[in-house]
Amino acid sequence: MARMSPAEKIAQLYGVWVGIDNADGQMAPHQHEFARLPVEWEELIRAGIGQLTRPFGTAPVEPRTGAATLAKAQREIVAAGRWGIPALVHEECLTGLAAWTASVYPSPLCWGATFDPELIERMGAQIGATMARLGVHQGLAPVLDVARDLRWGRVEETIGEDPLLVGTIATAYIRGLQSAGIIATLKHFVGYSASKAGRNLAPVSAGPREIADVLLPPFEMALRAGVDSVMNSYTDIDGLPVAADPTLLSDLLRTEYGFTGTVVADYFSVAFLQTLHNVAESPADAARLALTAGIDVELPTVNCFGSPLAEAIESGAIDPALVDRALRRVLLQKCRLGLLDQDWSPEPPILAESGDEASDGHPEEVGRPLDGALDGPAERALAAEVARRSIVLLSNTGTLPLPPATRLAVVGPRADTPHAMMGCYSFPLHVGVHHPDLAMGVRVPTLLDALRSDAAGYSVVHEQGCPVVGGDDEGIAAAARAAAAADVCVAVLGDQAGLFGGGTSGEGCDAVTLSLPGRQEDLLEALLDTGTPVVLVLLSGRPYDLSRQSGRLAAIVCGFFPGEEGAAALADVLSGRADPSGRLPVSFPADSTQPATYLASPLARPNEVSSVDPTPLFPFGHGLSYAPPAWTVVTADTTREWPTDGTFDVHVTLRNSAPHAVSEVVQIYLHDPVAEVARPVQTLLAAPRVDLLPGQSRRVSVTLHADQTSYTGAAGHRQVDPGRVELRVGASSADIRHTAVVTMAGPRRRVGFDRVMRATVTSADVQD
Amino acid sequence: MARMSPAEKIAQLYGVWVGIDNADGQMAPHQHEFARLPVEWEELIRAGIGQLTRPFGTAPVEPRTGAATLAKAQREIVAAGRWGIPALVHEECLTGLAAWTASVYPSPLCWGATFDPELIERMGAQIGATMARLGVHQGLAPVLDVARDLRWGRVEETIGEDPLLVGTIATAYIRGLQSAGIIATLKHFVGYSASKAGRNLAPVSAGPREIADVLLPPFEMALRAGVDSVMNSYTDIDGLPVAADPTLLSDLLRTEYGFTGTVVADYFSVAFLQTLHNVAESPADAARLALTAGIDVELPTVNCFGSPLAEAIESGAIDPALVDRALRRVLLQKCRLGLLDQDWSPEPPILAESGDEASDGHPEEVGRPLDGALDGPAERALAAEVARRSIVLLSNTGTLPLPPATRLAVVGPRADTPHAMMGCYSFPLHVGVHHPDLAMGVRVPTLLDALRSDAAGYSVVHEQGCPVVGGDDEGIAAAARAAAAADVCVAVLGDQAGLFGGGTSGEGCDAVTLSLPGRQEDLLEALLDTGTPVVLVLLSGRPYDLSRQSGRLAAIVCGFFPGEEGAAALADVLSGRADPSGRLPVSFPADSTQPATYLASPLARPNEVSSVDPTPLFPFGHGLSYAPPAWTVVTADTTREWPTDGTFDVHVTLRNSAPHAVSEVVQIYLHDPVAEVARPVQTLLAAPRVDLLPGQSRRVSVTLHADQTSYTGAAGHRQVDPGRVELRVGASSADIRHTAVVTMAGPRRRVGFDRVMRATVTSADVQD
Repeated sequence: MARMSPAEKIAQLYGVWVGIDNADGQMAPHQHEFARLPVEWEELIRAGIGQLTRPFGTAPVEPRTGAATLAKAQREIVAAGRWGIPALVHEECLTGLAAWTASVYPSPLCWGATFDPELIERMGAQIGATMARLGVHQGLAPVLDVARDLRWGRVEETIGEDPLLVGTIATAYIRGLQSAGIIATLKHFVGYSASKAGRNLAPVSAGPREIADVLLPPFEMALRAGVDSVMNSYTDIDGLPVAADPTLLSDLLRTEYGFTGTVVADYFSVAFLQTLHNVAESPADAARLALTAGIDVELPTVNCFGSPLAEAIESGAIDPALVDRALRRVLLQKCRLGLLDQDWSPEPPILAESGDEASDGHPEEVGRPLDGALDGPAERALAAEVARRSIVLLSNTGTLPLPPATRLAVVGPRADTPHAMMGCYSFPLHVGVHHPDLAMGVRVPTLLDALRSDAAGYSVVHEQGCPVVGGDDEGIAAAARAAAAADVCVAVLGDQAGLFGGGTSGEGCDAVTLSLPGRQEDLLEALLDTGTPVVLVLLSGRPYDLSRQSGRLAAIVCGFFPGEEGAAALADVLSGRADPSGRLPVSFPADSTQPATYLASPLARPNEVSSVDPTPLFPFGHGLSYAPPAWTVVTADTTREWPTDGTFDVHVTLRNSAPHAVSEVVQIYLHDPVAEVARPVQTLLAAPRVDLLPGQSRRVSVTLHADQTSYTGAAGHRQVDPGRVELRVGASSADIRHTAVVTMAGPRRRVGFDRVMRATVTSADVQD
Repeated sequence: MARMSPAEKIAQLYGVWVGIDNADGQMAPHQHEFARLPVEWEELIRAGIGQLTRPFGTAPVEPRTGAATLAKAQREIVAAGRWGIPALVHEECLTGLAAWTASVYPSPLCWGATFDPELIERMGAQIGATMARLGVHQGLAPVLDVARDLRWGRVEETIGEDPLLVGTIATAYIRGLQSAGIIATLKHFVGYSASKAGRNLAPVSAGPREIADVLLPPFEMALRAGVDSVMNSYTDIDGLPVAADPTLLSDLLRTEYGFTGTVVADYFSVAFLQTLHNVAESPADAARLALTAGIDVELPTVNCFGSPLAEAIESGAIDPALVDRALRRVLLQKCRLGLLDQDWSPEPPILAESGDEASDGHPEEVGRPLDGALDGPAERALAAEVARRSIVLLSNTGTLPLPPATRLAVVGPRADTPHAMMGCYSFPLHVGVHHPDLAMGVRVPTLLDALRSDAAGYSVVHEQGCPVVGGDDEGIAAAARAAAAADVCVAVLGDQAGLFGGGTSGEGCDAVTLSLPGRQEDLLEALLDTGTPVVLVLLSGRPYDLSRQSGRLAAIVCGFFPGEEGAAALADVLSGRADPSGRLPVSFPADSTQPATYLASPLARPNEVSSVDPTPLFPFGHGLSYAPPAWTVVTADTTREWPTDGTFDVHVTLRNSAPHAVSEVVQIYLHDPVAEVARPVQTLLAAPRVDLLPGQSRRVSVTLHADQTSYTGAAGHRQVDPGRVELRVGASSADIRHTAVVTMAGPRRRVGFDRVMRATVTSADVQD
C-alpha cells in the first residue's frame, strides 16, 4: 500500500460496469447512461480496477464466451498495472446467477415458504458453484430486508415479514454460497424495506427500536455466520442517508458487530448522496461522506470515487487515511480470495471442462432439448425441489387434488408465459429478454405446458382472458366460455416481474393498492360466475387482496415466482403427486391496509378504536395440506419455569396417517403479556419443518433459549425480562394448538450481539 | 397540601364523567361502560373531585338548565369536602362548545384554509366566552397534530399538513380561548397523527428528527404563547407509549420547554397502558407509569388513579411524592383560575343574564326561528365569516360563478342534510343526534336550502342520488335524469362525520383508500355522462382522490366541514357574491398513495426509481380566485446575503383589478439544496393572507429570520447552516412566482426552543 500511487489506491475502490459482446467476445464498458466511462479501457486499467461489475449480466452471452472474455480482461488488468492486482468480479445471483442460460431458481418468498434452511443452503451452494466455474467472486445476494409494506416492488426479493425466518433462510443461502468460495453480500444494510408507502427508495420513518428489533436481527444472524461483504441501503432513515451514516456503517457494523469485510455501495448510491438525498454538494463531497461513513467500494462504476476523489485528496479536502482504510479492506479481501497469490490464474474452471454441452441457444421445442452448461440435471432437480416445497395451499374446498382425466380450462395471463415463473432478478427479466423462447436459451415450461403433458391425463383448453395489465371484455368472455365448458377452471393470475415500471412487481415496480393488477379481478369474477369450480393459482411477487373472491374459490394455490421448474412443481401439487407443504412467509391482506404485518403490537391489531380491521385473510405461517398430521404438544408442565439465562423445551409429536408423505411446520410464538414497551403480540421463536413419510410419527424437540425472548427495552438496550410469558405452539400464527404459560425466573439480563438467536431442534421417530 | 389526606389528594387528580339530565336537572355519572363509577355521588364528593368531565356534552340539555345543575353540583362539592375546593370543569370545544344549541363553527381544516390567524383568534375568543358563561373552565382543544396520513379519521380535526400553519392557527385559537379565561388544552402531545396506515391509535414509526422537525413545532409555538394544559397522545412511538414516557412528558415538555401547567390524560389513556399497550400489569401499575412520566390528571374518570393508586401508595409501591407533584400542579391551576378564592361563586354568568331567548328547542321551520342563548347573531356572523374565508376553489373551467336564474340540479348525499356541515366533534355528531331538526335545537340550513332561497333566483331540483355509503342504481339514475334536465348540476358529495365507525370521517372512522366513500364515484360518473356541466362541492373530513374525474368536472369546490353557516357561505361563493379565498391546508392526492404530504424530501417526490408517482392532484396551498390579483415580487437582490443570525426581507406587491374584493395568500417556501440530512424539498416559512378591496394595491413585506431555516442536523440538534438556500415565493407550493437564491452568511448556529419561529409581516397600500 505504501508504494501505491493515489490513483492506484483509488482504482481499487471502484467497480467498472462491463458487458461482454456475444458477437466478438469483447469486454466493453456498459452503456448505461449513468455508467458510461470517461476514458477508454486501456487507459482505465493502467491504474487498476477494483471490481468488474456484472460481466454476464447485461446481455445474452454464451457462458464459455463470457468466461473466456472475462479471463482475457483479467489478464489485461493484471498486465497493465504495476502491481498485477486482478479485479474482483461480482454478479447478481438472487434467484440463481443472473447470466444467460443459468438456472432460474425460485424467488426468495419461495425460500421463506419452504421453511427449510438446509434446502436453501444446498441451493446457495449450487448457485455459488456455477459462479465459481465462471470466474465470478462475489454475488450480490441475499436480500435480508424484512418485508414491511406489501406495496413495495421488492417484496418479491425478500424472504418474508419475520426477522427470524429471514435471518435463518438468508444465513443458509449465505453458507451455501460461501461453501463454493463465493462472497455473499448482505443487502441492504439497513431499513430499505420500510420506505414510506412502500415506494422504492422513499424515506424511512422508523425509530431505533424498530430497527433493532425487526430490521437488524437478520443481519446479525448472517454476520455471525461470517460474511465478507455488506451493501448499504439506499434509503434515508429519519433523514439520515445510510450511505452517509457512520453510526450504522461503522459504529454498529464494525465496532459492535465486528465486521471486517468490505462495505460496497448499492449501485449509484454514493452519487445519490448528491443527486437524490441532497446531502452532498459535489461528487467529491459525496465521496467524502461515503468513505467517512464506511463505504469502501463504489459500485457499479466510478462516479465519485474517481477524479473527484483524487482531486479532493490532492487539495486536502479529503483525508487520505480514509482511502487507505477502505483500500486495506479491499486488498485483504482480495488476499483472502487468493487473487494476490503468485499462482492465481485468470482462467475460470469452466474453460477447463469438456464443452460438449455448449449450444447455440436456440430451442427447438418446449422443454430443454439443449442441456446448457449452467443448467444441468442437478440444477434442475434442486430448482424443482425448492419449488415443490414452497407451494402454499391457501384454501381448498375439496376440488384439489384434481382427479385424473379432469377436463380443465387453464386460463389467465400467467398460464402460458415462462416469465410468469421468474422474479425481477432473474437474468431474462433483469435484462429484459421478453421473447419467451429466449428466456434462458431454452423455453421454460409454463403451467399450461405442464398440465397438458401431465401424467394424470388432463384434457386441457386454454384462453388467456386478459393480460396482466389491460385487456378487454371479449377476452374475458372467451375465458369464461372455456371455463363454463370445463369440469374445473385453473385461473393462473399474478404479476409480470420487471424493473423500474417495466412490470407489476420488482425493483421500482411499486403498487398503490393490493388489488390484482389490471383486469384480473374482473376475469376472476367472470370465471366464478360460470359456476364451474375455479382454482386460483397465484404467481406473483407479493400477496394480493383476494378477500372479495376467496370465499367462492374452490381452491387457492400460491406459487410466488417458483422458477424454471415451477410449472412441474405446481402440476405435482395440483394433481396430488406432491402434498402442498409451503407456509406463508408474508400475510395475505384482507384489504389494502398497508403497512401491516403479523408483527403487530396490540394497537396495530383489530380493535374498537379504529374502523379499519387489519386482520389478514391468510395469516403468516398459514398453509394447508391435503392430509395434515395429528399433533400432540407437550411442554415442561411440571415446573413452567424458564431461567432468564436458560432454556425451555417444547416437544411436539406429529403423526402422519396418510398414505403419502406430508410435512408440517411447527411454529412456536412468544406472547409477552407485560413488557416495558409495546411489543408485537406474537413473535416467532422457532419454526422447524418436519417431513413425515407415510405412516410415520416423529417427535420434535425444540430447545428455546431465554435470549430469544429479548427485546429492546425502555432504556434502549436489548434485555431479557423476568415474568410471565406465553408460548403459543401452532400450525400458523393464527392456528395455535397449544399455549403454555411460563414464568421467566431470575434477574433481568442485558444481552447483545452474541445472544442466542435460534432454537435447537432435534427430532426422532416414535412408535405409536 | 400537608393537611390533606391521601384520599383527598388523589381525588384532585381525576375527573368524574357526569351528565345532566334534561328532564329533572340532575347531575349523574355518565353511563359510559368504562366510565361508570363504583360509588354514589354523595360518597364520591366527600373526598373532593378534581375535574367534572363534559357536563354539557352527553345529552341535549338546555343551557340554563345545564348551568344551573352544574352550579348546584359545584355547591355540593364545595360543601361536602373539608377544603371547599370546586371541581375544574372541562368540555370539548373543537368546533365550538360541544353543547346543545351552541354554535357549530367550521372544522379545523377550514381554519387552516383561511390562513387567517386573526380571524381564528376571534373565533376562539367567542367560543371561550360561551364556555365561560356556562361555568366551564377548560376546553379540550385545539388539535395540534400535523396531518401525516389522510386515511386517519381525525384528519378533519387537524389544521393541516404544515407545522407552521398548524402552529400559527392553533396558537391564534388558543389566544382567543384564553382571552375569555378558558384553559386551552394542547392535543395530542405528541405523534398521534403519524399512526401506521392512518389507523386510529395505531403505533407510530417515527424517529426523533421527524418528531422534532414536523410534529413538535406547533406545540412549541403554542407553549410560547402560554398555555396551562397539555393532553398526551394515545399512541406509542417506536414502542414507547407516550403516556408512560417521561422523556416527552417531563424532560422535553417541562425541563426544556418550561411548561408549568397540568398534563391531562387523553380519555382512558392511563388504563390503556394496561389494556391496549401491555406495558402495565395492573391499574395501579398504569397509575405509577403515568404519574412517573408526568401525567397529572386522569380523564375522563377514575379508573387507575382511585383505589388502585391509593392502595399502591398505602403499600409503598408508589412514591407519594408523585401524587404531591401532580397535586401541586392541579391546585396551582385552580388558584390561577380563582377557584380557591374566598369570593369564588359557583353561579356561572348565564344565570345572571335575562333569559328571554331561552327556547324549548323545537324548530318550526328551516332557519332559526328560535334565537338560542348560545347561538346569537354575533356567533352566526363569525361562523359565516370563517366559513366564507375557508372555501377553496380547486378548479373551474368558467362555469362558476353561477349566473342568476341558472336551472340547477342539486344532487348528492350531502346536498340536504345539516350534518354534512359538521365535523365529528360538533355536539350533534359527537352525541349522535341524528335527527336533522334536532341537530342544534334548530334546523341548520343545507346547501340545497341555501341555493333554493338564494338571491340569484336559481331554479332548483333535487335528487339525493345515493347515500354516503350504499345506494342503488335507481337512485343514481334519478339523479342523472335531474342533471340532464338542468343547466348545471351541483353535486354535493363527501363524508358523514361520526365516531368509532359511525361515519366515514372522524375519530375511529379511518379509511383504507382515498376513493370517495360508497357509490359516490359511480354517481359522479353518471352525472358526468349526462354532458351537463357538473360542479362538485366536497363536504368532507379529508381530501379524496378526484383524479379520475377532475379533468371532466366544470369546477371543484372544497368546503371540508364548514359549520352551521356553511351553506350560506358556499352559496355566496357559488353565486360569485364572495370570491373564493381559501387555500388548501392539505394536499389532494392523485391516487391512494399514503402516507404522502407536501413535506417530502427528494426521494419522497416523483422520481425514476419508483413506478408510483405521489404528485398531488391539488397541492398544499392551492386555491383559485375568480379574479386573482397581479403579483410583483421583490427581494433584496443587491446583497442576497442573509446572516445566519439575522433577517431577510421579501416584498410582494399585489394589485386587484377586479371590481370586487379578492384575497391572496402569499406563500414563501424554503428550499435548501444541500444539508446534513435529507430535508423536505420545500418548507413553508410564511403565508400572509392579503385582502384587497376593488382596485386596491398592497405591498406586503415579510421579514424572515434565519432561525426559521433551522432543522435538526446530523448530530440531533436544531441548527442554522451557512450556505446557499432558495426562497420560493408563490401562490401555492406548486405555483412559484419568484425564486431568490440567497446566501446564508456567518457561522453555523445552534438554536432552541426560544428561536424565532414566525416571520414579521407588514403591509401598506401603494399607488399604481
